[in-house]
Amino acid sequence: MTRILYELLGKDDRRFSPFCWRTRMALAHKGLELDEIIPIGFTEKEKIAFSGQDRVPVLVDNGKTVFDSWKIACYLEETYPDRPPLFGSEAARGEALFINHWTYQVLLASIFPMVVLDIFNHVRPEDQEYFRSSREKVMGDTLEAIHATRDARFKGFHKKLDALRLTLQTEPFLCGESPAYGDYIVFSIFQWVRCISTFPFLEADDPIYAWRKRMFGLFDGLTETVEGYPC
Amino acid sequence: MTRILYELLGKDDRRFSPFCWRTRMALAHKGLELDEIIPIGFTEKEKIAFSGQDRVPVLVDNGKTVFDSWKIACYLEETYPDRPPLFGSEAARGEALFINHWTYQVLLASIFPMVVLDIFNHVRPEDQEYFRSSREKVMGDTLEAIHATRDARFKGFHKKLDALRLTLQTEPFLCGESPAYGDYIVFSIFQWVRCISTFPFLEADDPIYAWRKRMFGLFDGLTETVEGYPC
Repeated sequence: MTRILYELLGKDDRRFSPFCWRTRMALAHKGLELDEIIPIGFTEKEKIAFSGQDRVPVLVDNGKTVFDSWKIACYLEETYPDRPPLFGSEAARGEALFINHWTYQVLLASIFPMVVLDIFNHVRPEDQEYFRSSREKVMGDTLEAIHATRDARFKGFHKKLDALRLTLQTEPFLCGESPAYGDYIVFSIFQWVRCISTFPFLEADDPIYAWRKRMFGLFDGLTETVEGYPC
Repeated sequence: MTRILYELLGKDDRRFSPFCWRTRMALAHKGLELDEIIPIGFTEKEKIAFSGQDRVPVLVDNGKTVFDSWKIACYLEETYPDRPPLFGSEAARGEALFINHWTYQVLLASIFPMVVLDIFNHVRPEDQEYFRSSREKVMGDTLEAIHATRDARFKGFHKKLDALRLTLQTEPFLCGESPAYGDYIVFSIFQWVRCISTFPFLEADDPIYAWRKRMFGLFDGLTETVEGYPC
C-alpha cells in the first residue's frame, strides 16, 4: 500500500505547478499521506511515460495511476468517502468544475503572460531551452517581449477578479465557512505565483489578500513553508 | 399561511427580471406553491415600500418579508430543509455565491448593453420614461447609441462564456447530474433575454444551448410557457 505523487520540479527545488499544488492540498484535506514525492523537470517526461501521457501531477495510489488534477480530486473523493469531503455534494462538485475552468480560462490565462519570464528564471537550467521554445511558440513572441507587456496587462487584471473578490467579501472561504477543493483550485494559482514571482498581484486591502493569507495558514504551513517569495 | 411574490411586470404581461426568475425556480425546486404573484412596473415601487427597499423580488412567506434573490434562496434553504436542497452542502452554497457574482459581473454586464433597447421596448408605456432616463444616466449614452454597439460587443461575448461552456461539455447541469440553484442563477439570464429579445446569443451546437433547452424543460414548462420569443 503506497502512495506516490509525481510533481513538477524547478530550479533550487522550487515546486511551482499550480496543478500539483491542488493535488497536494486535496491529499492534505483528506489526511492522506504521501509515501514519496517524485519531482520531475520539464524535460524528464520519460519518468511519467508509464501513465500514458506527459503531464503532472500523476498520482499512483496503491498501484492505481491517476492523472489530471481534476480527475485526481474526483478519484480521491470517490475512493476515500469517509475522509473529509473535497466537494461535499454533487452540486458542489459541478460548481467546483466551473471554478476549475474559470481558474484556467480567466485567472491562469491572465497571469501567465505576466509571469512567464519569472517562470523561465526558475526553471532548471537544463529545461530552459525547452521551456522557452515551447512557450514562445504558443505565445507567438519572445518571453522578454511578453514580459514587457506586464504593466499594460495588469491594468485590466483587478476587474477580472471581481466575482472572487465579492464572494470573499462576505465568506471566509470560496466554499463558505471552511475551505474545500474550490478554494484549492483558485489558491493554487497564487501559490504558483508566490513560488516564482515578486510581482504584487494583490493589494493588502483586497478581500482576496486576506483569504490568501488564511489559505497559507492551512495544513501546518504546507504551502507557506516551501521555497518562494514573501507576499 | 400565505406565500406572496412581488415581481417585475413589463408590457403585455412580460415578466423578464432575471432576479425574479431565480426566485420562481427556487420555489419550484422546493415544491413551494405561491398563493399570489403581485406584478409591479418600474414606477410602482410604492407597492413594495413595506419591504424597506425598492427592488424585486420580494417574498412574503407566512408574514416574513425577504428581499434580494440570493437572500431569498438562503432563506428558503434554511426554512425548508426537508425540501429538495437548492445548494446541498455548505461548499455548494459558497460556490453558488461565486457563480451569483460571476453571473452579474460577467454575464449580465456583458449582455445588458446588447439588450437594453429590447428591454425598453418591452417596458410598460408608463414606465418607459423612467427606464430610459435611469439607464441612460448609468450607461452615459442614449439607449439607441448603446444598441448600435451590439455587433461589436457580441464579438467578445462567446469567449466570456468559456468556463460555463467547458463545464456543460461534460456535465448535464452546472450543478452536476441534476439542476440546483447554481443553474437557476445562470439560466435566469437566458430567460431574461428570451422574454425581451430575438438576438441569437447562442449557436445551436454550443453545449450551453443544449443545457438551456434542458432548463426550459424543467418544472412543467414554468419558464418556457410564459410570454417571450422562440430561441
